[in-house]
Amino acid sequence: MAIHVVGHANPDTDSVTSAIALAAFFNAQGKEAKPYMQIAAADLNPESTTVLKRFGLEAPEMLDDAAGKKIALVDFSDLAQGPANLDSAEVVAVVDHHKIGDITTNTPILFRAEPVGCTGTVLNKMFKEAGVAIPEAVAGGMLSAILSDTVNFKSPTCTEDDKIAVNDLKTVAGVDDTDELFMEMLKAKSAVDGVPAKDLLFRDYKDFDMNGNKVGVGQLELATLDQVAGIRDALVGAMEEVKAEGRHSVLLMLTDVVKEGTDLVVLSDDVALIEKAFDTKLDGNSMWIPGMMSRKKQTVPNLQGAFGC
Amino acid sequence: MAIHVVGHANPDTDSVTSAIALAAFFNAQGKEAKPYMQIAAADLNPESTTVLKRFGLEAPEMLDDAAGKKIALVDFSDLAQGPANLDSAEVVAVVDHHKIGDITTNTPILFRAEPVGCTGTVLNKMFKEAGVAIPEAVAGGMLSAILSDTVNFKSPTCTEDDKIAVNDLKTVAGVDDTDELFMEMLKAKSAVDGVPAKDLLFRDYKDFDMNGNKVGVGQLELATLDQVAGIRDALVGAMEEVKAEGRHSVLLMLTDVVKEGTDLVVLSDDVALIEKAFDTKLDGNSMWIPGMMSRKKQTVPNLQGAFGC
Repeated sequence: MAIHVVGHANPDTDSVTSAIALAAFFNAQGKEAKPYMQIAAADLNPESTTVLKRFGLEAPEMLDDAAGKKIALVDFSDLAQGPANLDSAEVVAVVDHHKIGDITTNTPILFRAEPVGCTGTVLNKMFKEAGVAIPEAVAGGMLSAILSDTVNFKSPTCTEDDKIAVNDLKTVAGVDDTDELFMEMLKAKSAVDGVPAKDLLFRDYKDFDMNGNKVGVGQLELATLDQVAGIRDALVGAMEEVKAEGRHSVLLMLTDVVKEGTDLVVLSDDVALIEKAFDTKLDGNSMWIPGMMSRKKQTVPNLQGAFGC
Repeated sequence: MAIHVVGHANPDTDSVTSAIALAAFFNAQGKEAKPYMQIAAADLNPESTTVLKRFGLEAPEMLDDAAGKKIALVDFSDLAQGPANLDSAEVVAVVDHHKIGDITTNTPILFRAEPVGCTGTVLNKMFKEAGVAIPEAVAGGMLSAILSDTVNFKSPTCTEDDKIAVNDLKTVAGVDDTDELFMEMLKAKSAVDGVPAKDLLFRDYKDFDMNGNKVGVGQLELATLDQVAGIRDALVGAMEEVKAEGRHSVLLMLTDVVKEGTDLVVLSDDVALIEKAFDTKLDGNSMWIPGMMSRKKQTVPNLQGAFGC
């Protein structure tokens, strides 16, 4: 049975291109494998769509039920972020760069997670160590993922390993100017005109269990906060709807990539707790936090600390 | 704070030498780290004691409480197999070759598990990839662990990667004849004269949760079953004591390394279930299973299947 390689729900560029890359890696080793994602191609975010198009990569097919399948996970290791019935699938490999999740297995498997900025960086090491050449288009996808996840090297999650991987991959992918590639992605990703508020909230959104409380955190990376000035009320409305589904808190990070900070919009059953988490007072329903770029490395650990996780 | 590198409870040679090796790896990268084990040096099994002595390695100090410490795990990833209060420690790295356990973290870490015969094999790759030289004595320990875990390449868990690692490490350690090293370990490990039955049962013993049932599985590797002919009743007596502490089943694998098979001694609340697990009928309280050498790859998966895990 072929290995189904799949990234997390609400896929970002890393989880899509890493599925493509790990499937290619398996194929090069003589293993049957195919990349998947948990949404239809039409629902892919604008940044990822732009990347696939630029490098001539096909969008992975949709996988919405893992039952009975051989599954490899990229860019996550939490059951909750996988396709339905992941707990009754056979997980055969995990490649990731996030905190270690609750996936367990009955037999030994390859589980490779490293504290670097992007799963693409870990995959680049795996290709190098195995002496396997990366196809040009696949390298373009991996390169884009690293630039996206590290916010063009500006995110605190960015490591030396990520820079080395970008240097390797730009050559293979034939990309001279990575800044230009990053700006093309940023323009695609931060476009908000005509997009429904709820779609914007879910563009890069994850639910977390914080000591028994369901907390949703979305992030919109923007070239400037002016882009959302006219739709703040609509965004808060969408957050209210999502919070009413049984969440303790819903947060939306409006991240200004150029100014390097985040306007954090907060709806919560316990506003004081969230203020404590970030040691900042809300101004209306949001707070400006200079330097905050990363949900994974900054927002979530702060929340976990405040919730006593 | 220094990283405390520690292997699983009831340490075998792999978990002791891997703690030493990963601490050396961290030290070479400028990180403060020290190897530990969950027992006192006096309680170390005879095989590991022989290996440490042969290569001039110091026995790691005992670590019995992980609370508040920075911990790196080698050769396991299950909370239940760690020191007390592991759930309130900061786990900073995991290197393993077993099934993926229930360790989770709040931040990204290095988690490297591969489906190979020994954690020493994974560590050898990490040294090579990082371009870090392995100290001669440490290489001797890693080499011994691979020969022990793969039963001198005869275990079904043995892979090509393990053979490559042995080839690398014997050169560094200055060992010409790995068969001779293996026989020295086997003689030390299989000596039973004058050892209390309970100590023999716990020589290489692990508890497992099988669908809510506590199941203990010990293994004694022997040059011949004749070695335990005179103490079978005493071993069963020790198993009865351990079972009475609230276990559903206690199994003892008496593995004949030369004949390549296991006489499996069984005490169970549901003998029929255990018989079904191995598709063999008990003769008295044990069954001979030809080819069974590995608890991890053969005994435990069969039990998990029967218990519906």
